[in-house]
Parts: sequence; C-alpha cells; structure tokens
Amino acid sequence: MTYQTANISIEKSESTKINSVDFSKLDFGKVFTDHMFVCDFENGEWQEPKIMPYQAMTFEPSARVFHYGQAVFEGMKAYKDHEGKVFLFRPKQNFERINKSAERLSMPAFPENYFFEGLEELLKLDNDWIKPGLGNSLYIRPFVIATEPAISASPASMYRFMIICSPAQSYYNSPVRVLVAEHYSRSANGGVGAAKAAGNYAAQFYPTSLAQKEGFHQIIWTDADTHTYLEEAGTMNVFFRVNDTLITAPVSDRILDGITRKSIIQLAEDLGIKCDVRPVKVEEIKKAAKDGSLKEVFGAGTAAVISEISAFQHKEELFEISGAEDSYAKLFKQTLLNIQYNVSEDKHGWRRAVK
Amino acid sequence: MTYQTANISIEKSESTKINSVDFSKLDFGKVFTDHMFVCDFENGEWQEPKIMPYQAMTFEPSARVFHYGQAVFEGMKAYKDHEGKVFLFRPKQNFERINKSAERLSMPAFPENYFFEGLEELLKLDNDWIKPGLGNSLYIRPFVIATEPAISASPASMYRFMIICSPAQSYYNSPVRVLVAEHYSRSANGGVGAAKAAGNYAAQFYPTSLAQKEGFHQIIWTDADTHTYLEEAGTMNVFFRVNDTLITAPVSDRILDGITRKSIIQLAEDLGIKCDVRPVKVEEIKKAAKDGSLKEVFGAGTAAVISEISAFQHKEELFEISGAEDSYAKLFKQTLLNIQYNVSEDKHGWRRAVK
Ligand SMILES: Cc1ncc(COP(=O)(O)O)c(C=O)c1O
Ligand SMILES: Cc1ncc(COP(=O)(O)O)c(C=O)c1O
Repeated sequence: MTYQTANISIEKSESTKINSVDFSKLDFGKVFTDHMFVCDFENGEWQEPKIMPYQAMTFEPSARVFHYGQAVFEGMKAYKDHEGKVFLFRPKQNFERINKSAERLSMPAFPENYFFEGLEELLKLDNDWIKPGLGNSLYIRPFVIATEPAISASPASMYRFMIICSPAQSYYNSPVRVLVAEHYSRSANGGVGAAKAAGNYAAQFYPTSLAQKEGFHQIIWTDADTHTYLEEAGTMNVFFRVNDTLITAPVSDRILDGITRKSIIQLAEDLGIKCDVRPVKVEEIKKAAKDGSLKEVFGAGTAAVISEISAFQHKEELFEISGAEDSYAKLFKQTLLNIQYNVSEDKHGWRRAVK
Repeated sequence: MTYQTANISIEKSESTKINSVDFSKLDFGKVFTDHMFVCDFENGEWQEPKIMPYQAMTFEPSARVFHYGQAVFEGMKAYKDHEGKVFLFRPKQNFERINKSAERLSMPAFPENYFFEGLEELLKLDNDWIKPGLGNSLYIRPFVIATEPAISASPASMYRFMIICSPAQSYYNSPVRVLVAEHYSRSANGGVGAAKAAGNYAAQFYPTSLAQKEGFHQIIWTDADTHTYLEEAGTMNVFFRVNDTLITAPVSDRILDGITRKSIIQLAEDLGIKCDVRPVKVEEIKKAAKDGSLKEVFGAGTAAVISEISAFQHKEELFEISGAEDSYAKLFKQTLLNIQYNVSEDKHGWRRAVK
C-alpha cells in the first residue's frame, strides 16, 4: 500500500517481521523494524522524503562515505507508557545536534519539518515494535551519509538522510569498569570530537579493545594534549560525585554535548544537588578515591541512560568505587525514566508525545 | 566470460565504457574502469576474492561503515611507459600501510597474495585505461569498509575489501596557496592521524572550505596542542627549503607516513641535498620567509606527486614565495616521474612491473 502525508510518500510493508523477534533477548542494534525513512540530497536540495519497507540499498563503490567518512548520526529513543502512548525525549536536541554535526563535516542541514514528520510517521507505522515497560524502548538512528560517486577529497554534492529503528532493552546491565586513557585519545582541539561523526567511533575501537584485554569495559578519554583531564567515555558523558557534589567536564570542541548530561545537570539543580561543571583532573579524582570522598562515578547517555562505574584504573593504579547508599546514579536514572515513560510530571517540557 | 586464476574468480565485463571517456578532460575520481576487485571478510576469514564488472553494490542501512566510520583506504598509481609496459611505484608500501591503517581501526589485515594478485589481474583487464605520457596514470583505490549490519559501537565482524580504478591526469596543475591552521586541527596525539582512515578526511572539509572562502586552496595543519609546528596538508606531506636545506616534519601518530615523502628524503640523499627531518616551527618558516632564506615550499603525495606552494598565510600575515631558479620541487618531480614511467634507472628498486 502506498499513500502520501503532507511531505512524505509512504510505501507500507506488506508483512511484518515482528513475530520472529524475541523481545526478551534483544542484541542491541541487530534487529530493525519494518520501515525506514529515506531522503536524498541532490542538485542542491533535499528531494521528496520517503518511508519504505526496511531494506538493503544500492551504493556506488565510489560513494564518498566509504572513502572520506562524511557521515553523521544521532541516537534517540521512543518510550511507551502503560496506556500505549508513545513519547520522545527532547527530540529537538537531537535534530539540532545532527545538523550541527553535519555542518562540521560540510554536509547540508536537514529540514526540521521533514525530520519530525518522518519520525512520527515511522513511529506510527512501527508502533507495535515499541514495547511498554521501563527499560524497553525503540532505539532510533537518524544518520546522513555522502553518496556522491566521486573519490576526490572534498565535500560531496549528494547525500542520503535516513532513519532506521531497532527495538532495545537496557544497554549495559551491570556496573562497568573503565580505564583512564594515558596514551590514546579520542579527539583533538579544533577537531570533530563534539560532532557525532562516524569516524570518531572507529577511532576508539582499537584502544578500547586493548582496554578490554586488560579486563575493562570502556575507556574514559582524557585531553589529548596532556592526558591529565577526564573528558568523556566512548558513548557517554561522565559524572563524578565527590562527597555530595557532582562534577562533570564542560563541553568543548572535543566533547559531545550530551542530552542526558544536560538533563542531569538540570535535574541536579531541581533536586538541590550541587553540580560543578568544570575541568576535572585525573589526579583530583584519584585523590578523592584514596581519601574516601569519591562516592560515585557514572556515565550518562541515551543508550545506557545512566551507567554506574564501579572501578577505574590509571597508570596501573586500580580504584574500586564502593558506591553510595543514597546513590545519585540510581536517583537520576529513576527520575529520567519516570519522565521518559510518562510516569512523573514533566516540568521542563522534555517529553514529546507522538500522535 | 568467467575464469579463474590461482586465487581469484574473474567475471569479465561484456563491454567497455572506455570509448565514452574523454581522456584529455578527466575530472579526478569520477570515471572508473570496467572492472573492480572485491573480497569479503566473514566468519573470521577473507572469502574468495573476485574481479567483476564495475558496478553498484547492495548494503544494509545498518552497515557499520555508515555509522562508525570503520573505513580505510590507499591511493596508488599505475604508470605506462612508451612501450606499453605498466609499472607500480613502491606498491608494497601501500599494501603495508593499508593493513597498518586497518589495525588502528580494529579491522582485519588483508592477505598480501590476494592484494597483489587482485591488483595485477585488474590492471591486465583494464590495461587500455592506462595511458602513456608523463602525468597520465591510472589512480588505484584499494579500500576496506565494515559491512556488518549491526549498529552497536564496536568493531564489525564483516568487512569488504575492494579495489577500484580511475584514469587520472595530473592532480593539481598550478601552484597552490595555503593557510596555516591556527584553530582547527586534523588529528590528535594518540589519535588516528597516521592512518588513512576515512574520517580524517571529512574532518578537514569544513575548515578547508573556510580557507577556500579566503582564497586559499588548502590548509597546512599544525599540531593540535599548540598550533606552533607545521605538520602536513590534507593529502600531502610538506617540505620547506631554507637556503639549500630541505626540512620536513617527522612522521608521528598524527602525520601520515607518505610514500612520496620518504622517496624524496631518499632522493635528496642520492642527490646530495641536505634534508632535515625534524619538527618545523611556524615562526621559523615565517622568519625565513621574511629574511629571504625560504626558497621553496612544496607538498608531496601520490595524487599530485609534487605540488608547489606559492604562498602561505598565518595569523593574517601573508607570505608569497617567489620560488628558486634551481627548483628542488621541479627536480624531485622530474626525478620521481622518470622513475615511475621507466625513463631512468631505478637504483632503489621502487618500480614494480606488472606482467
Ligand atoms: C561520544 C558521546 N558522548 C556522549 C554521548 C551521550 O549523549 P546523549 O546523552 O545525547 O545520548 C554520546 C551518545 O550517545 C556519544 O556518542
Ligand atoms: C593525509 C595525507 N598525507 C600525505 C599523503 C601523501 O602520501 P603518499 O605520498 O603515500 O601518497 C596522503 C595521501 O596521499 C594523505 O592522505
């Protein structure tokens, strides 16, 4: 069946794969819903957006994305409450961030009306893939890639914007152990670290694999110049609780301006928890770990929401973090989930209902 | 027609596009030859390599290359002499470098026998696309991309290695004007700058576009920490001639170990030209430009061979470089071309004949 909304032409899938999916055993990012959103940029403008059955697509081997990494993405989620209503969390932030990322990579901005119309239509069509229950969600992946078939090292003139969706359970289950970067780094001053640029992620895989061989799950990146300041993890911003004060690094051109991070900073204010946004020295956190004032460390990001960090290592010194009884990590996680799943009041207007 | 070499299964194109190509008006990287080489990595090993007609291919929208930038490449050339013999220039260096790049991005190494067998068969099939005459060449683009359909931020388990070829004339014709980076940067200490990783290139497009708006062709990148040392250009290493001494930055984890660069360092030794490989301060080069001792600046890379730099700007100060009568740039270019095109003796064994 095909039909048309204000801007989008829609081809509905004739069948659904949903019955073949075990929603209690989901591997993150491997199963996709029945539909996807596609819009091509050509001749200086975005062409007619389309929703179509999820499917493989044809690309020229010379498509610039394969050679020069012009590719940016977002990660967001749709949540379902117990009445079956579907919500997004601060989606305008994702929309603005993908365009900011695109600008840094010389890619064209995507129109806001296409973004939200596409997203809402997609969520309507694939509504059954969004399961209610805290922790269940539909992970939404908007991305843009350079498709122009030409291998000169310059910005492409043809792009594809897409949204694909994958049902998700909670990302990390147990507390993670992290290694603090001493040699490798994630991004440079004046680089693309603040963009959700594809190349930033591949760059982390090798150092992360070395850390994993030593028994750590992830790396906390430090500044590339001196490796003395704690910045962020691979897909999470990081918070430190020293006594009853939270500390997190300021965003910069090296650090992603995470939506979970900025929500936590706001929630801390609401809850009367002091949160310092300032450069965080590795030495300061080690000292706090030694004198017992370091109560908690946690990561914050859309995929994991809050991920408790139970240990960190720096220069061969390992620190176990016992965790606090009145856990801030758990408090923020619950507060965020309650907002996201329409359980609690939403005084900042962060929820956006999908009609 | 299909047949088989030792390792490769070959499907020959039924027709050729060559007659539709104007070889006197080639846009770099837009026209491709009749065949391509493809080899997939699955189940922990490289599968049977294939040569097939050049064509678009199918990819899942969730292929990791689109999301996390796991993509590396090489750039090399085939040259034809006046008797129609075809040569590669130090191809083993490219082979080793693509595997080094791959390792840094947690991608599997490609086997040497597949690489060279594939390349030689491809060049045999597309021999007519290689035109004789200095400056004409066949640009060869080996690349590897992550194809696994799964959007978790970790190394893929499926990859595709490909070689595509595009006929080329000389890349830059006239001297280029460059801007010295003061704010933006190309790579971080402990980052992936030394790898030919796709994401490194997209990261340069936006700052380069700003430079272009000011009338410059390219940027010379400086160290991201202090922006006081000259490193390399977007696709070229850079040499400075002060009086009769050449200076070029040492390679590092931020700078690509260019094959043209290392060939020039060797040729300088052969020719009795002093070449210092050491960190190069921006201030030192500005001072040399002011006192008249800066004779030449040039870029070195496979695409352009040698590209003379006629002006550079740093902190609003513009320096025109008049160029020397006994140009080293021209000398090295001619010496390299003579070796590449089988005109002169090849005492270092850099040429590799394609049978
Ligand atoms: C590098 C990086 N840092 C932090 C985050 C967290 O950002 P957000 O809270 O917007 O998901 C992400 C993405 O999820 C990320 O990729
Ligand atoms: C960043 C960069 N620097 C330098 C070079 C020059 O290297 P080569 O002489 O091996 O072509 C290249 C590629 O050609 C490059 O991409």
